[in-house]
Amino acid sequence: MRLNCDIGESFGAWTMGLDEQVMPYIDQANIACGFHAGDPSVMTRTVRLALTHGVTLGAHPAYPDLQGFGRRAMACKPEEITAMVLYQVGALTQIAASEGGHLAYVKPHGALYNSMMRDDAILHAVLTALRKSPQPLALMAMATADNAPLKRSCAEQGVELMLEAFADRAYDSAGYIVSRSQPGAVHHDPDVIVQQAIALARHEPIQTIDGQSLTLEADTLCVHGDNPESIAAVRAIRDALPESA
Amino acid sequence: MRLNCDIGESFGAWTMGLDEQVMPYIDQANIACGFHAGDPSVMTRTVRLALTHGVTLGAHPAYPDLQGFGRRAMACKPEEITAMVLYQVGALTQIAASEGGHLAYVKPHGALYNSMMRDDAILHAVLTALRKSPQPLALMAMATADNAPLKRSCAEQGVELMLEAFADRAYDSAGYIVSRSQPGAVHHDPDVIVQQAIALARHEPIQTIDGQSLTLEADTLCVHGDNPESIAAVRAIRDALPESA
Amino acid sequence: MRLNCDIGESFGAWTMGLDEQVMPYIDQANIACGFHAGDPSVMTRTVRLALTHGVTLGAHPAYPDLQGFGRRAMACKPEEITAMVLYQVGALTQIAASEGGHLAYVKPHGALYNSMMRDDAILHAVLTALRKSPQPLALMAMATADNAPLKRSCAEQGVELMLEAFADRAYDSAGYIVSRSQPGAVHHDPDVIVQQAIALARHEPIQTIDGQSLTLEADTLCVHGDNPESIAAVRAIRDALPESA
Amino acid sequence: MRLNCDIGESFGAWTMGLDEQVMPYIDQANIACGFHAGDPSVMTRTVRLALTHGVTLGAHPAYPDLQGFGRRAMACKPEEITAMVLYQVGALTQIAASEGGHLAYVKPHGALYNSMMRDDAILHAVLTALRKSPQPLALMAMATADNAPLKRSCAEQGVELMLEAFADRAYDSAGYIVSRSQPGAVHHDPDVIVQQAIALARHEPIQTIDGQSLTLEADTLCVHGDNPESIAAVRAIRDALPESA
Repeated sequence: MRLNCDIGESFGAWTMGLDEQVMPYIDQANIACGFHAGDPSVMTRTVRLALTHGVTLGAHPAYPDLQGFGRRAMACKPEEITAMVLYQVGALTQIAASEGGHLAYVKPHGALYNSMMRDDAILHAVLTALRKSPQPLALMAMATADNAPLKRSCAEQGVELMLEAFADRAYDSAGYIVSRSQPGAVHHDPDVIVQQAIALARHEPIQTIDGQSLTLEADTLCVHGDNPESIAAVRAIRDALPESA
Repeated sequence: MRLNCDIGESFGAWTMGLDEQVMPYIDQANIACGFHAGDPSVMTRTVRLALTHGVTLGAHPAYPDLQGFGRRAMACKPEEITAMVLYQVGALTQIAASEGGHLAYVKPHGALYNSMMRDDAILHAVLTALRKSPQPLALMAMATADNAPLKRSCAEQGVELMLEAFADRAYDSAGYIVSRSQPGAVHHDPDVIVQQAIALARHEPIQTIDGQSLTLEADTLCVHGDNPESIAAVRAIRDALPESA
Repeated sequence: MRLNCDIGESFGAWTMGLDEQVMPYIDQANIACGFHAGDPSVMTRTVRLALTHGVTLGAHPAYPDLQGFGRRAMACKPEEITAMVLYQVGALTQIAASEGGHLAYVKPHGALYNSMMRDDAILHAVLTALRKSPQPLALMAMATADNAPLKRSCAEQGVELMLEAFADRAYDSAGYIVSRSQPGAVHHDPDVIVQQAIALARHEPIQTIDGQSLTLEADTLCVHGDNPESIAAVRAIRDALPESA
Repeated sequence: MRLNCDIGESFGAWTMGLDEQVMPYIDQANIACGFHAGDPSVMTRTVRLALTHGVTLGAHPAYPDLQGFGRRAMACKPEEITAMVLYQVGALTQIAASEGGHLAYVKPHGALYNSMMRDDAILHAVLTALRKSPQPLALMAMATADNAPLKRSCAEQGVELMLEAFADRAYDSAGYIVSRSQPGAVHHDPDVIVQQAIALARHEPIQTIDGQSLTLEADTLCVHGDNPESIAAVRAIRDALPESA
């Protein structure tokens, strides 16, 4: 079980995230590509930081919406999405290469991620970008109770799939994370977070918000580097999990 | 002598340039990368059009200034310029690769081009981006009466140099094009344009605006596809010049 | 019956619309405010042009999406919409005042207009902006078969309502314009357009796309200045209608 | 002597400045208008906070450069600057009015401020915007050893001038603040800052970086709310100065 984290979310004069503090504890860095956060200079610094710590590089493309931080769904056409994913992936690929690194995967951000999980046309648009990319790029997407459709879509396009789960989020019985607007959606107790991380890593069942049992097949856990509490949670998860490759 | 043209300068719902009409007559397409013009969808269409006509692809990166079309100088730091060139070049590289193409060169646009020709720190910032790029990328820059400093800077960074000249612009005796704000700066007579193109192609002297003789060493002529008159000029130049490779 | 037209949709170096040609024939100019089109300089020129022709000024605010020309729905919160409408209205108000003019109304653009017509929360967000504005500003919205809900919402906020209809678009029996993706959605025959304009001006019934009879209560007709054909249609409508106040 | 502070510099999901902590101690809020920082929602919150504390509202317009935070000089034409100042001032005016407030002055931000202090054409472009504004708006600009030219320019345009000085910056003998790139440019010792504030308030001479004596005529001191240290400095200055009106 690996740990992935959204990173490089500063922009110009604005700082977001404790990237330097969280980087030593993660395996995969989902790097913002300038459409919701990040700019060419921030991306360069972030790539350097990740490479220093031997962290795998991933692109974190988004809808073009800096003010909304890519969290506002936009009614883009599939071919627009394919083009914007290629654009962002390419920008980061070049910056990574200029520092001696390369991208291994793509994890859509925010509203684009949510849209992709709900709308096959958008998933297909993202996968088309990855299929048409010259470098091999896996798609990182959300593990749910039934990953078969996602796996099928990826297989059809010849794209590797990485499934991610969340240690600090409550799940419903369909294997989707509970919306932040619901009570109990986010775990704050470090013990609960670590226990859920261990269960997910061992492919053991976790308890859903409505008391059901849920087993998720996941390759990576999404962790956060926003504040000291989240950094502490990442460290606790890292200590509790067997070392990743 | 090849013909290069700024292309792909539409943006979203706005159209600029007669790209489909000029593409059959040029050898090198300087494709806008989204910072002054172009967007991921426009870039995709432009790459397809260029590849259909066997036109060599070049990136046309700019300062981040859509409203000013990249024509307003911006006081960016050298490391910001290196990062923004890498970003734009990478975005276009990925889109080109998704369509089976690749970039051969980079021609900075507008104010970035002018700044690069005047300021060694900016030239060095651009060259650093090219040197750090994994793919071989030539720099397209302006031929003047003395290309030695430019050649030396490129050689130091291991970057190939392509020199461009203008058939429709008046030159001063230092081999710089006369500012558009001056009378006589732009040739409108097709015969004058074609004669200057032929002279430049044969490395024969042209007459400067102050009546001097100027010989320019140039590999490529910059032509325009803005309007029917400029298309006619491109066709006339193409007819007058020996076929390029 | 007045004629309104979306105008000032150029941006930076990009030109859109034949503003100078259409302005003499319209009564109300819906001026882009920089979020989907227009920029401060374009807005200044557009205001001057409208004032020269004695055309009433209206703001045409939009979602922040230059690339998508404000046509892509964005999942913005109501308070974000209120704030962005105030922002755009204020920007245009100041530019208008600097030229001796003032705004009379607000017509949301593109996806924001469509969202407002379908979603009460978004309509309320727009009306809140108008209610909180110091100057009296009417809302221009789409006349349908049942304007009562729209009238009620405007009355509740103390905002005057201007209803607009379309001479060149087919209607369904609910009084909504048929989507451009449907065959027959747009009238191209000038006679058909003029006849529909006359019927709408006289509050006589028009025929819907499915052969029903529809009477619309409208104060203004939306006309277009995109190309010579639309200019010709505007002139024909203007010739056919009794002079407006 | 009043205290003014740049404020409302958050943008979207990014927070900058301790606005809530500094607002109780200042008299004049220079509010970002969306071009270098701030967005319509941030501006709304900032106006509310300022009005709660009875703080005078000022606009802080900038070059259109979010990534560069308005600190990179841009070669804009004077008429572009007039239009962009009007645009930003209007946007904030409308938001202020929607909350029951109004603007009293305009202080250009960052590179626009520096350009205006050095270049008469840019100063004139800014003053033209204020002269053409319907509301009375003072210009806040930097006090130097010789304010006569600035006063003359403002008087010619009928614009009131507010002169600001800095308690935490070293001055040269021409009355300009020493560039941050120079050693000793910024005072960090709270006692030094308070002493300079008191001297400036009493129109007593301060010592320049090269040991000369300098008397500045200033109406307001620029203070900062970036971090706890700057907040402490503002409180110390406030305690040391006679209460402002």
